[in-house]
Amino acid sequence: MNSKLSAQPVPESLRRVRVVLSHTSHPGNIGAAARSMKTMGFSRLVLVTPKSFPDDQAKTMAAGADDVLAAAQVVGSLAEALSGTVLALAMTARRRELAAAPLWARDGAAELAAVAAQGEVALVFGNETAGLSNEELAQCARWALIPANPEYSSLNLAAAVQIMCYELRLALLGVAPAPVVAGAGAPATHEDVDGLMAHLERTAIASGFLDPDRPGRLMLRMRRLFSRAGLEKEEVSILRGLLASFLQPTGKRHPRAGGDAD
Amino acid sequence: MNSKLSAQPVPESLRRVRVVLSHTSHPGNIGAAARSMKTMGFSRLVLVTPKSFPDDQAKTMAAGADDVLAAAQVVGSLAEALSGTVLALAMTARRRELAAAPLWARDGAAELAAVAAQGEVALVFGNETAGLSNEELAQCARWALIPANPEYSSLNLAAAVQIMCYELRLALLGVAPAPVVAGAGAPATHEDVDGLMAHLERTAIASGFLDPDRPGRLMLRMRRLFSRAGLEKEEVSILRGLLASFLQPTGKRHPRAGGDAD
Repeated sequence: MNSKLSAQPVPESLRRVRVVLSHTSHPGNIGAAARSMKTMGFSRLVLVTPKSFPDDQAKTMAAGADDVLAAAQVVGSLAEALSGTVLALAMTARRRELAAAPLWARDGAAELAAVAAQGEVALVFGNETAGLSNEELAQCARWALIPANPEYSSLNLAAAVQIMCYELRLALLGVAPAPVVAGAGAPATHEDVDGLMAHLERTAIASGFLDPDRPGRLMLRMRRLFSRAGLEKEEVSILRGLLASFLQPTGKRHPRAGGDAD
Repeated sequence: MNSKLSAQPVPESLRRVRVVLSHTSHPGNIGAAARSMKTMGFSRLVLVTPKSFPDDQAKTMAAGADDVLAAAQVVGSLAEALSGTVLALAMTARRRELAAAPLWARDGAAELAAVAAQGEVALVFGNETAGLSNEELAQCARWALIPANPEYSSLNLAAAVQIMCYELRLALLGVAPAPVVAGAGAPATHEDVDGLMAHLERTAIASGFLDPDRPGRLMLRMRRLFSRAGLEKEEVSILRGLLASFLQPTGKRHPRAGGDAD
């Protein structure tokens, strides 16, 4: 993943994905699903014969994703919802008789993402209680299952939409380096760290903690510790200020106004 | 991933994970988060000064996860919530100044999973609006960010818990345990690090480097630095030995035979 994740414009492939909710009973779930979609950059919602839509509960649960709700398409059948798609991935909550083996969610998202490079695709979710009917499942070329606690696998509809949209976003936008943080300070150079280590060593000798004739592995360990932390330049300055304060004769110690280096 | 994911018994590592919700405003979100946790096999919920708990709304939203709610621990501070943990991963919704780079959610889950092979770990979520305070963030060794739509990144609290628990379940069950590093010592606990920070603060005040009336952000920065390093117990002892030597009156300082703690 890389910093492009939050910097690049919405790629065309995100717009090739439609999320289909079939026979949803609770309008609040439609709103919450719209919110889940939008947090991951998806905007095309298709509703197959929802029990109640539009509905105030949907609006409330959508929070800032009311634009997704407003643009939602209501259709009379799954076939209509899938019109124009080249791949549909049906989410199934349980193993079924007569079913081909489903994919795990992540693998299903990867397959959908690969196809979305070329054409329209759909993620399909069934009714909260009954799931998708066998007739509906048969219209989808792939089925997927979210790995869950076998003793309590009942994900809320919007939670399932959230996980699948998250997986699909990652699959579509790819993997890359860690996010860059604007506020992070300049990293300390090797020389900065060397200077700090030398200062620490002098101070430890002066305080009597380190016997220069028998240094052992103390400095090696300290270097290893501070290496792991990935020091910033400013942190090196603070630590050296601290060390300098320790070397002052006790009599000269006094509170300073500028104790905080920030 | 394979079918073992839903067939094997709950591994010990799932029980080493606690989910910490700090300063949650809406009790419904606590219930929904409990449900999200349970669907992924996690059961240990810790609440830091929730606005209202127990609460009927929480029960309603928890659906079948009322056992998770009933067993939830309510504590007065994040430090208390993290007691006994060796790694805490803080979720942050936005980039902050002065922050080290956060990990992406998947990488953070992988790291937490690797450490959960050895000790207790925590996933930490802040208030719905304000997130975690800088003081809270500084107590967590790692920060993570869920990749989201830059134009609408406001995931519902339970949705963020759902994604992280999903990632963590996959990381714990989907991959082989991390290789054990022969030379690595026992990790320091949260209390060990607290003790070190208090000792450092006392020493910095005594040396005149830190003005207790104008503490600024010195200790916050120090905590953040040492959190990043992932301290070992023995390193904490060495550092505290060093600090103790600095507090000795200069006249009593003398080279010691045992200066090296190795």
